[in-house]
Amino acid sequence: MTTIAIHGGAGALPRSEMTTERAAEFHAALRAALLAGQRALLGGGASLAAVEAAVVAMEDCLFFNAGRGSSFNREGRIEMEASIMEGANRRAGTATLLRRVRNPVQLARAIMEGTPHVMLGGEAAERFAVAQGLRLEPEEYFFTPYRWDAMLKLRGTDTTALSEDVVVPVAVNPAAMGTVGAVALDATGHLAAATSSGGTTNKYSGRIGQACIVGAGVYANDTTCAVSCTGQGEAFMRGVTAYDVSAMMEYRGLDLARAAEIAVRERLPGRGGLIAIDARGNVALPFNTEGMYRGWIDVAGNIFTAIYDTVQSSPAV
Amino acid sequence: MTTIAIHGGAGALPRSEMTTERAAEFHAALRAALLAGQRALLGGGASLAAVEAAVVAMEDCLFFNAGRGSSFNREGRIEMEASIMEGANRRAGTATLLRRVRNPVQLARAIMEGTPHVMLGGEAAERFAVAQGLRLEPEEYFFTPYRWDAMLKLRGTDTTALSEDVVVPVAVNPAAMGTVGAVALDATGHLAAATSSGGTTNKYSGRIGQACIVGAGVYANDTTCAVSCTGQGEAFMRGVTAYDVSAMMEYRGLDLARAAEIAVRERLPGRGGLIAIDARGNVALPFNTEGMYRGWIDVAGNIFTAIYDTVQSSPAV
Repeated sequence: MTTIAIHGGAGALPRSEMTTERAAEFHAALRAALLAGQRALLGGGASLAAVEAAVVAMEDCLFFNAGRGSSFNREGRIEMEASIMEGANRRAGTATLLRRVRNPVQLARAIMEGTPHVMLGGEAAERFAVAQGLRLEPEEYFFTPYRWDAMLKLRGTDTTALSEDVVVPVAVNPAAMGTVGAVALDATGHLAAATSSGGTTNKYSGRIGQACIVGAGVYANDTTCAVSCTGQGEAFMRGVTAYDVSAMMEYRGLDLARAAEIAVRERLPGRGGLIAIDARGNVALPFNTEGMYRGWIDVAGNIFTAIYDTVQSSPAV
Repeated sequence: MTTIAIHGGAGALPRSEMTTERAAEFHAALRAALLAGQRALLGGGASLAAVEAAVVAMEDCLFFNAGRGSSFNREGRIEMEASIMEGANRRAGTATLLRRVRNPVQLARAIMEGTPHVMLGGEAAERFAVAQGLRLEPEEYFFTPYRWDAMLKLRGTDTTALSEDVVVPVAVNPAAMGTVGAVALDATGHLAAATSSGGTTNKYSGRIGQACIVGAGVYANDTTCAVSCTGQGEAFMRGVTAYDVSAMMEYRGLDLARAAEIAVRERLPGRGGLIAIDARGNVALPFNTEGMYRGWIDVAGNIFTAIYDTVQSSPAV
């Protein structure tokens, strides 16, 4: 039985570029995020708090394409987005086109809890964040040389704007499909999901992706599952992939593993992966890319993390 | 067999406020939009062109809350959004947080066809519109005294910000839930859907609604149906309602009428309606509000329009 699962993006570095040292850093970062989520669950904490805490940990970590480590769009700007959803009542909050909010997932939660709306975007969303006491950072905070170079390399080659090939191939920039997310089940049986992303490198300015779209990049319903997605955002939006997992469970009677597998292997019109959990603590983490940064904790506290096929486990702390 | 259906918003004026004269104006506006869509279909035109043309006609009409007749947010600004989707290949384009684009649905189509993305928002989306040769209008173009007064009335009463009651009750402003949309079937059997909205009156600045969310306010898939939704946007987003109709057809084997009915009557966590068409030309137009501006044209060219229960028909032109 799993209590929390996370991903740090499909589109992991190709095996050929992954050194032992780099892998160890990623495993450590995933463990840290899992433990942040688990801490929120201990003593009866809500799944909503757990997914928020795990995602905040990854937003604050430079390794992941969300929050601090976000990718640059083709104008050299950061535009982040995030979402959160509660399975008990299908309440949701999402935010997009954020430039300075330190933790977009916290803004998503504030929108869910503090407005009559599901989704806010742009400068007005950041003004709301300030009014809620959330922390903004100067744009330099989000700057990482690695992401900047990745954008410059692509921008240089983008001589044919508006053609399909500006979709960033994973081979060119493994971070292109990064996104982080978490799903959790708490002691009261409630599910929650959260997703946060810096979007694709060299994306158009103003591009909005799946990480802030209920049904595409995030979904939670106690009667079926909680889901967080990562990959080519446009494919998840067209496929309505996060809700598709839930719909296959509810309408076709599939179990979580089968529904998640079909969603990613047969129905997703593109590349990526997802994490999903149901109310019995079953978990599924399918992806159709070479790797996906991911991890989970079982009810005994054992921690599992993985990038490709091999799973590293470490005992409860 | 129906070839095109449209809606001009659930949340029609209450019967008590609807005069014969007003009703006649609405019926005429619906007929004009239907004919604009039908013209695009004549001679083998694509369903995509038909839904675009019908929505453009309603965006240009002051009666509907989309394009020119858009509602004001609580800062006295217009923020529009729109979407379009092709059933043949599930391609989609959507745009949001628009202030000056005359026809948001045309920008949605340009994003679908001219970028690798599904969704663009804000000032960058408007820059893209200009680059595509789309028409912007000064903000005054979108000003209508009726919408302005509706916003002022609500703004005056909104002394408890962030409370649930800032969701505009239909009784206060019948235009609150306005949105326009169209679904169509062409001679080659392809489906398309489009939705466009000015959003809810007195909404937060930066609020993004269902009209630009694939799966919530728009969906099209030749193997199931094309759907356009209207109503309390947040409910459609949480319910992933447009895709839900398709999922019930595909996974539960329901026919269009039954799936559309269940989506609106049993599953939607709020108020509104939708229009849906399948590849055999069946159409469904369920709503759980007092009325919904709507209409359709059958394959013989007969025109049907309705606001409440009574359907007006007129022969082919």
